[in-house]
Amino acid sequence: MHNQVADLIETLITEEHSPESISKAISELTPDDVALALESIPLAQRRQAWANIKQANRLDILVEMRGESRQLLLRELDDAEIESLFTDVDAEDLLEITDSLPDRLVDIALKQMDTKQREYYQQGIVYDEDVVGRWIDHELLIASQSIRTSEALRLLKKKTPDYTDMVYLVNRTGRWVGCVKFDRLFKAQGHEPISSLIDEECSFIRDDTELTKAAEQLERSALAALPVVDENHILLGRFHAGLAMETWRLEHEAQQMSTAGLNEESDLFAPVRRSASTRGIWLGINLLTAFMASAFIGIFEATLQQVVALAVLMPVVASMGGIAGSQTLTLIVRGLALGQITRSNLKSLLSKELKVGGLNGILWAIVIGVVTLWWFESPMLGVVIGLAIIVNIFMAALSGVLIPVLLDKLRIDPALSGSVILTTVTDIAGFVAFLGLGTLLLL
Amino acid sequence: MHNQVADLIETLITEEHSPESISKAISELTPDDVALALESIPLAQRRQAWANIKQANRLDILVEMRGESRQLLLRELDDAEIESLFTDVDAEDLLEITDSLPDRLVDIALKQMDTKQREYYQQGIVYDEDVVGRWIDHELLIASQSIRTSEALRLLKKKTPDYTDMVYLVNRTGRWVGCVKFDRLFKAQGHEPISSLIDEECSFIRDDTELTKAAEQLERSALAALPVVDENHILLGRFHAGLAMETWRLEHEAQQMSTAGLNEESDLFAPVRRSASTRGIWLGINLLTAFMASAFIGIFEATLQQVVALAVLMPVVASMGGIAGSQTLTLIVRGLALGQITRSNLKSLLSKELKVGGLNGILWAIVIGVVTLWWFESPMLGVVIGLAIIVNIFMAALSGVLIPVLLDKLRIDPALSGSVILTTVTDIAGFVAFLGLGTLLLL
Repeated sequence: MHNQVADLIETLITEEHSPESISKAISELTPDDVALALESIPLAQRRQAWANIKQANRLDILVEMRGESRQLLLRELDDAEIESLFTDVDAEDLLEITDSLPDRLVDIALKQMDTKQREYYQQGIVYDEDVVGRWIDHELLIASQSIRTSEALRLLKKKTPDYTDMVYLVNRTGRWVGCVKFDRLFKAQGHEPISSLIDEECSFIRDDTELTKAAEQLERSALAALPVVDENHILLGRFHAGLAMETWRLEHEAQQMSTAGLNEESDLFAPVRRSASTRGIWLGINLLTAFMASAFIGIFEATLQQVVALAVLMPVVASMGGIAGSQTLTLIVRGLALGQITRSNLKSLLSKELKVGGLNGILWAIVIGVVTLWWFESPMLGVVIGLAIIVNIFMAALSGVLIPVLLDKLRIDPALSGSVILTTVTDIAGFVAFLGLGTLLLL
Repeated sequence: MHNQVADLIETLITEEHSPESISKAISELTPDDVALALESIPLAQRRQAWANIKQANRLDILVEMRGESRQLLLRELDDAEIESLFTDVDAEDLLEITDSLPDRLVDIALKQMDTKQREYYQQGIVYDEDVVGRWIDHELLIASQSIRTSEALRLLKKKTPDYTDMVYLVNRTGRWVGCVKFDRLFKAQGHEPISSLIDEECSFIRDDTELTKAAEQLERSALAALPVVDENHILLGRFHAGLAMETWRLEHEAQQMSTAGLNEESDLFAPVRRSASTRGIWLGINLLTAFMASAFIGIFEATLQQVVALAVLMPVVASMGGIAGSQTLTLIVRGLALGQITRSNLKSLLSKELKVGGLNGILWAIVIGVVTLWWFESPMLGVVIGLAIIVNIFMAALSGVLIPVLLDKLRIDPALSGSVILTTVTDIAGFVAFLGLGTLLLL
């Protein structure tokens, strides 16, 4: 699979290929493979490749692209070209790309849609991007609760939507009543009322559920799809396994990127100035915390001048605290995400982490103290760094538990901001403990 | 959903509840919720809670627990108790927990299994944990390619397995021939040979495919399950949407934990000594890199003694390089995972990252230089730190591209080791550039 993409990348990037051979290479792959290949080449070649894609395939490829890549491409197209792209756009596609489009172009797209699709778009757009309601699948097998089995079986002779192994029953006002699995339908007698076949196991997802929570619920249900309903239990559509798989795959990618303060929509070949400025925010935040740490070091200038070894060993103290703290933090962030951490077990958890911190602090204090003693031939310097390590790893354990719990209480995502705050705390605590103890014991 | 788990955690953790009320609270939740609640309480209370779980529910709960939690629990049980746990164990459950069991107990479990399940276990255990073959689902709707539609329809009257919207066809030797979707079956005439209804879209997954690759393939297929075959195309079973969702969910969790050198199977309340020692490896690796950085700082002891401001500002230079480098690294690691980075686009990518690094280096050099000038009232110190920032951010961009690509070539996972190597490089490069330039220009 990936080799095909690699081949296409090479075709698109090397100059000597004819438009025909590019066109042919593109038409042989699925839209998501083409989108990935386009995202893997510099912008100039991307424009050229785009010109060689058949009009009929362009929208599908555009929908599959990551946000930033799509924006960069759309920026190059004129209105007429975009308008012709949108002749076949449906609600789902437009919801996917709407954030990359100026309002003017969204209006153009909406005008070309049929009433039903426009309605779906307007229903979806009111929800946030990470909520089920935005991505509802409207293709579903639906029947009135008052029909008989034989009538339901007739429904099945039409093409059924993907991920379908049941029929959803509604009452006269469109409220969801229950699900009937195919196998119960096949076994039943034709004259039985369909409502007698309802599966008790099947439940529903509320439209305002977070995507990851909905995916968890679907996985537990062992069904290929679950009905989505609004607050009045009106059946809006489905959340199916394809959406759940996509949710986790993108969540995984977002997690990977966010550790470096990046967005999962980032383009590999975004223009230099644009990349530099989006990355700048994270660098700026980091610079502020680094200057804070420097300010604390600055307090001990006089000490550093007299004992230069302290300056040499500073990074050891700070980084050991940072690592120990982020281990605790990570465990707590996962626990919060899983709903494992509650008021009732927080005290036991804190006490356990402080014990681990204490034990690790003492062990590594001995190791580092001995190395320092051997390196600088100063027993007192060994004692100073050992004590500083104990203080800092202990502080790290305390912060590793309390910072994410506090952030969570304040409804700030601890996965994003937790580690910046934590390493600032452990850096400063480490420098102050080490240089402060040095001032007391070595001068 | 999570509130129920929180309630159970509180019930299990507070002393005053009677065994009956604990038993009742447990029986009201699903096995995975109970497993999560057990993982959320200290070990002593966990043992007590376990004693109040009905024998019939214990295996299901054990299977749902994370690896370390399961191991800690099994350690407490005697052989007789474990043997009675395993009276109903099937291949899938045993494959899930086998790594937490000593061989002796695996043998006990195998003896109690029926022949078919034992065979499935032995087929699965030869595969690695991250490969499809290990987790094959053996419940499937299967038919000979030579039957007629009417016979296939009769098959459907039995209870169909989860995630089933098609029948798999095999030839006489058990080789996979194709899939027939339910809707084509319903539309067809009873006398039509089933082989005429084969869906061309449906393909298969090879048994040795990585789980995440299989999940991607399943998502692209828009089917609820795909057949799994061996090298001779013999049909072994299925890979369904439930397995794909679980794959991504666990992958997401593993990613989250690995950033701190932790394993996704870690227990929130693992014993203190055990936690301290598992976390120690990562601390030890970090310590080595920190001492390496210190050794490089040590070279400039004489300089530091004369210009203490260098010691105060060291963390700024090192950390800016670390952040800039990990941004590039993260983008490249994602690109490698997606198959986006090939021999053909590596040069363009490197050149783009070096430009971003150069631009960001110059911008931040100016900011940091000006702040330093204002803080220490030394224009030359401002020049020194500015130049060091440019050198280090440029080095960071270079390492951020080359380190993961080299690791990938050496078949080492760049997501795991990349950031440790990178920050070591940027720390050392930062200190050497800053202190080296300081020695040249300030003394």
